[in-house]
Amino acid sequence: MTIKISQNFDSGAIEVLRADSAATIELNLRQDNSADIRQWFHFRLQGARGQACTMKFLNAGTATYAKGYEDYQARASYDGENWFQVPTSFDGQVMTIHHTPDLDSVYYAYFEPYSFERHLRLLGEVAENPVARVLDLGNTVDGRDMNLVVVGDPKAEKKIWFIARQHPGESMAEWFIEGMIDALLDDANPIARKLLQRCVFYVVPNMNPDGSVRGNLRTNAAGANLNREWMTPTAERSPEVLVVKQKMHETGIDMFFDIHGDEALPYNFVAGNEMLENFSEARRAAQQDFIDRYKQASPDFQDKYGYAASKYKEDMLTLASKYVGHHFGCLSLTLEMPFKDNADLPDPHVGWNGARSKALGAAILQPILLSLD
Amino acid sequence: MTIKISQNFDSGAIEVLRADSAATIELNLRQDNSADIRQWFHFRLQGARGQACTMKFLNAGTATYAKGYEDYQARASYDGENWFQVPTSFDGQVMTIHHTPDLDSVYYAYFEPYSFERHLRLLGEVAENPVARVLDLGNTVDGRDMNLVVVGDPKAEKKIWFIARQHPGESMAEWFIEGMIDALLDDANPIARKLLQRCVFYVVPNMNPDGSVRGNLRTNAAGANLNREWMTPTAERSPEVLVVKQKMHETGIDMFFDIHGDEALPYNFVAGNEMLENFSEARRAAQQDFIDRYKQASPDFQDKYGYAASKYKEDMLTLASKYVGHHFGCLSLTLEMPFKDNADLPDPHVGWNGARSKALGAAILQPILLSLD
Amino acid sequence: MTIKISQNFDSGAIEVLRADSAATIELNLRQDNSADIRQWFHFRLQGARGQACTMKFLNAGTATYAKGYEDYQARASYDGENWFQVPTSFDGQVMTIHHTPDLDSVYYAYFEPYSFERHLRLLGEVAENPVARVLDLGNTVDGRDMNLVVVGDPKAEKKIWFIARQHPGESMAEWFIEGMIDALLDDANPIARKLLQRCVFYVVPNMNPDGSVRGNLRTNAAGANLNREWMTPTAERSPEVLVVKQKMHETGIDMFFDIHGDEALPYNFVAGNEMLENFSEARRAAQQDFIDRYKQASPDFQDKYGYAASKYKEDMLTLASKYVGHHFGCLSLTLEMPFKDNADLPDPHVGWNGARSKALGAAILQPILLSLD
Amino acid sequence: MTIKISQNFDSGAIEVLRADSAATIELNLRQDNSADIRQWFHFRLQGARGQACTMKFLNAGTATYAKGYEDYQARASYDGENWFQVPTSFDGQVMTIHHTPDLDSVYYAYFEPYSFERHLRLLGEVAENPVARVLDLGNTVDGRDMNLVVVGDPKAEKKIWFIARQHPGESMAEWFIEGMIDALLDDANPIARKLLQRCVFYVVPNMNPDGSVRGNLRTNAAGANLNREWMTPTAERSPEVLVVKQKMHETGIDMFFDIHGDEALPYNFVAGNEMLENFSEARRAAQQDFIDRYKQASPDFQDKYGYAASKYKEDMLTLASKYVGHHFGCLSLTLEMPFKDNADLPDPHVGWNGARSKALGAAILQPILLSLD
Ligand SMILES: [Ca+2]
Ligand SMILES: [Ca+2]
Ligand SMILES: [Ca+2]
Ligand SMILES: [Ca+2]
Repeated sequence: MTIKISQNFDSGAIEVLRADSAATIELNLRQDNSADIRQWFHFRLQGARGQACTMKFLNAGTATYAKGYEDYQARASYDGENWFQVPTSFDGQVMTIHHTPDLDSVYYAYFEPYSFERHLRLLGEVAENPVARVLDLGNTVDGRDMNLVVVGDPKAEKKIWFIARQHPGESMAEWFIEGMIDALLDDANPIARKLLQRCVFYVVPNMNPDGSVRGNLRTNAAGANLNREWMTPTAERSPEVLVVKQKMHETGIDMFFDIHGDEALPYNFVAGNEMLENFSEARRAAQQDFIDRYKQASPDFQDKYGYAASKYKEDMLTLASKYVGHHFGCLSLTLEMPFKDNADLPDPHVGWNGARSKALGAAILQPILLSLD
Repeated sequence: MTIKISQNFDSGAIEVLRADSAATIELNLRQDNSADIRQWFHFRLQGARGQACTMKFLNAGTATYAKGYEDYQARASYDGENWFQVPTSFDGQVMTIHHTPDLDSVYYAYFEPYSFERHLRLLGEVAENPVARVLDLGNTVDGRDMNLVVVGDPKAEKKIWFIARQHPGESMAEWFIEGMIDALLDDANPIARKLLQRCVFYVVPNMNPDGSVRGNLRTNAAGANLNREWMTPTAERSPEVLVVKQKMHETGIDMFFDIHGDEALPYNFVAGNEMLENFSEARRAAQQDFIDRYKQASPDFQDKYGYAASKYKEDMLTLASKYVGHHFGCLSLTLEMPFKDNADLPDPHVGWNGARSKALGAAILQPILLSLD
Repeated sequence: MTIKISQNFDSGAIEVLRADSAATIELNLRQDNSADIRQWFHFRLQGARGQACTMKFLNAGTATYAKGYEDYQARASYDGENWFQVPTSFDGQVMTIHHTPDLDSVYYAYFEPYSFERHLRLLGEVAENPVARVLDLGNTVDGRDMNLVVVGDPKAEKKIWFIARQHPGESMAEWFIEGMIDALLDDANPIARKLLQRCVFYVVPNMNPDGSVRGNLRTNAAGANLNREWMTPTAERSPEVLVVKQKMHETGIDMFFDIHGDEALPYNFVAGNEMLENFSEARRAAQQDFIDRYKQASPDFQDKYGYAASKYKEDMLTLASKYVGHHFGCLSLTLEMPFKDNADLPDPHVGWNGARSKALGAAILQPILLSLD
Repeated sequence: MTIKISQNFDSGAIEVLRADSAATIELNLRQDNSADIRQWFHFRLQGARGQACTMKFLNAGTATYAKGYEDYQARASYDGENWFQVPTSFDGQVMTIHHTPDLDSVYYAYFEPYSFERHLRLLGEVAENPVARVLDLGNTVDGRDMNLVVVGDPKAEKKIWFIARQHPGESMAEWFIEGMIDALLDDANPIARKLLQRCVFYVVPNMNPDGSVRGNLRTNAAGANLNREWMTPTAERSPEVLVVKQKMHETGIDMFFDIHGDEALPYNFVAGNEMLENFSEARRAAQQDFIDRYKQASPDFQDKYGYAASKYKEDMLTLASKYVGHHFGCLSLTLEMPFKDNADLPDPHVGWNGARSKALGAAILQPILLSLD
């Protein structure tokens, strides 16, 4: 069997320049389907069992977040279920994976993928729980369903909103949501049971299913960065935001979380609302309280490293968490997880991954409960 | 929430004419992507929880196998995992599903689907077994991988070949293969252990991944009915057959099974090689012995009902099992399972389904072992 | 089939006075094997499918903790895996269970049992984890193994000790331990990973296997209440304490937790070291900090209701947590869970149970981590 | 940690003569509790991680079936779930296990145990299936429940009876039953579905729970070999047989299977009714047909090796299968599985084991169906 690289499956993305021998595989990162963004990759290598493979990503230096490849280890899996890190280097221009696969077929990805089929299974399981509903809000550009999970009684006092994966390549965001929902539906979880006495949760597990299936990093099928569309979403360019924004205004919001991944920083952190004009001292204190409580709930979370408060000054109300913080005057956070590992608590074998993202998602229920009043 | 019908997922296929109320849903069967074939359907209904739905397939009477809808019950599932039958009628023109969903979201399909993601997971699990390999043979029209599972030692005396799902809507065929492979890899299965002392199994779990993902019934992405391509497959029109045929001639074949579903007959049966010129009395006896042994191994299998031997007289060598029987002079069978139920042993709750197809697949190892010499 | 009540299985305990008809079943609580203690029950009822059963415990009023039956619901299970509450009343003399079993065979118990076989399976799983060891400390009175689970590096800075089930009928204590150990061995749990950087955990999942198998509430096979043996344990009467105490002095202790169930109070709480002479203000503050942190980690934990500090004044150094607090000068707590439900967060279907005890066990890692210095 | 050998758990049985060092462990086989039978062993070794252990069974040469240790490999497990073979030798006097355990705690047994707790869980699961019942027939000598599983409609035309584990150390017999019942309750198994159209199954999964828990090889708590009690069972000595025999006469029997293990022969086989006076030619043919069909259903089954027909001439009606064959005039077989491996299809890693016994149990449904008329 000769060497072969393929990508025609959920979130597959790569360009093959050369794959005639294991030692000299040359690849290019592929663009998002309608936008000049290059970063995500996911491909299958066959025919290299027991051969020392050198896979060079020749255009890595011109990727959207080239710094994301510094001190980064690519992820690999033989079965698509168990993912691990493989030795990866980056010289500023070329990223190289060095790996000798044990089996005939192996997958490599920028991060542990979360497929659309897993997304639909998650919705299916949730829907069968008597305290949950799965609602439809409308369609994506490609005609996929925009689903909203509702956990708890819509008449509850507090409305907690989660959205995830506006940037579809940030698959850790949907792992986080799966962990959060599992915890919320666990009959033996006292934090969840307390929360559901007073709160209803509105959760969009995947804001960008089209981009997820297509293997985009950052944009939807129309090329829109959804997290710049919150001021004036349109049915043509950003229907995903349009329908969710409408539902938010229908329900109201008491706390909001927008779940993301960050290419460069090897930490879990949140970006808050400091840059908003209506950000009072009371809100600042509440925001900091939430952060402090989350740190206690999970040592994987920290606030030493993060974004400068000024980062999004210019276009800030086009971002989900700024828009929500501005309009609803509530706690509103963008949560970022690393594509790299968490440098505070590294796991050389797997790096930051799906299971750890799920644990961080489950842990967020505690600071929510403690911050309710 | 208003009623909504969607189909943008693995093997989704439907045309919606009208869905303004649960009582008056009107649908059309959709064509295979490049061929005038209408039969398979798979869609998701949302927003009808607790409402008595009437779903009319207006063009069912002009479907490719309209008789397939006589005495047929559609399949439904809330989670995509557990499928059951729902009341379905057909008046010769219009097929109608009557169902009151318990939940917000429900799937309907012509038969329990077997997704491409499950296909890839099956390959992943198999590959991790030390007695199995997963090889790549080439690409489909859409650029998906044509994978071959090899179980056992290629130097073994007997080469047993299985292919499945030339007709992609016949998803029962891949369930059958999953059951057969699971049995073959079961350390506690004495039939499998005996077989692997003398045989190597070459298995193509899905001959037509493109058509499977696209929701076609019968053709590949180029519109080819792969089971009419075995004389002169081409890289443009039927690369799936081309690469498998090449591999077959490389390995040789001692027994061959092509796994299918039949729209009309409510039975499990095989079609043999009676129409071949070189079909000797010895081969006829061997074929009948195999059939008799399979009947003993599984009461779901029978030979009272089936195809007339003359059915494929004209173009017979374009069919896989006739081609193989002609060229390799070996036992070569097309196995058909029902889209309906097995009328000999009906299960009103689930009909013929994935689990029963798997059991029939596991059971075939017994007649293979008993027919080895 | 006539009605039959039996008890010859792990932790079975009941005396049958009369079982000739479902409506008039009369029982007595059975004594611990060598001590005048009556409280635990666990039996199997057969032959009453579909019959309204009235099961009277005639001597409940003279039980060791008769108040334990006030506002208490007995637990039942058809398969020994899934347990639920059944209507139970107590008039001060007689406790009565009213239940119509759906199946031929049903178990009733004072609390969801944790069998010796599950205990051995837990040890078996733990032993296969590379960061854990399963050591043997010696023998019980009946000759069972006294096993110690060690998680982490024995050379670690902090030694955290857990013991559970000195009182064998308090099966929730071993469920708690199972939950704590599962969390500690979860690679994706950041609290566990942080803890294992600095701590080693010494855990005795079951201090009293003999009493557990025999269906005792409170004593070992020799009739000893192990939690009154810590001053002068002997090889004859309390070898279980003797060997554990020796190991404690060998390793040293930085934090200690003794896990129990309480028959009367419908709450989770701890009893501390206030009564000890060497209990400094600093230790009082540390103890309260721990309690406050545990409340944040689990809303199932509280400190409003509990034991008066004076409760064990007399014989206090005979108790494990007082003994340890006195000798090692460290945080040392007795943790109590309810046999009833947690009145702060009741679950009428299952009451306090194994799964919730496991969750409380998993949650204790957080206050331990936050209290390390 | 010093070396320690213990046995106080389900089916534990050993005598320790010397265990001061790994290299010189000396043991004796222990007697059945009330009979002069020595063969079964099951013990736990602790404290020998990484040490080359030599375990000598000094009295193996005087065991009841000393030949059972020729060409025999002992079974071992670290977790009580996964069992494997370890190097074992026998010189006619002393049997020696040579093994270097990887972990602190390891179990050794004569054969993969089937515990009483697993027995109760099996009953619990079966009872929850709507086509099954779990009935109580009475008590063992020690007061355990004698349970009968009934699958199918008691009014069905054919009554098929299974009993297992009259000899309690033959744990493979209950694994066999578990496999047979699982198959019978599998909705996707066409043989089971066919059978339940015409048959009711009466199954005693364990004829001798007392001996099983006590770690006896061959006798009940009173010292009786139950398979010599079928002529005149008594409430004192053999209540287990008494109650089952009564139920058999109440239901009638059309086919009967008594499931056993054989210490010496490395094969699966049956012993039939040739020695009975009323054994007609028709019955002989039916018996041989059944055997031939079973061979086709499972290559683990054979009839080349087995017992001479005259083996039990003297006391034959005291044996279950002879008694039943004589009184009910039906097919009545004693089925034997090996303690060694199946020499026809050896698996050096695990030998004959629980999983393979289950497969043989599942496979028996096919010859039963084919032999119905
Ligand atoms: Ca982002
Ligand atoms: Ca077909
Ligand atoms: Ca207590
Ligand atoms: Ca025997």
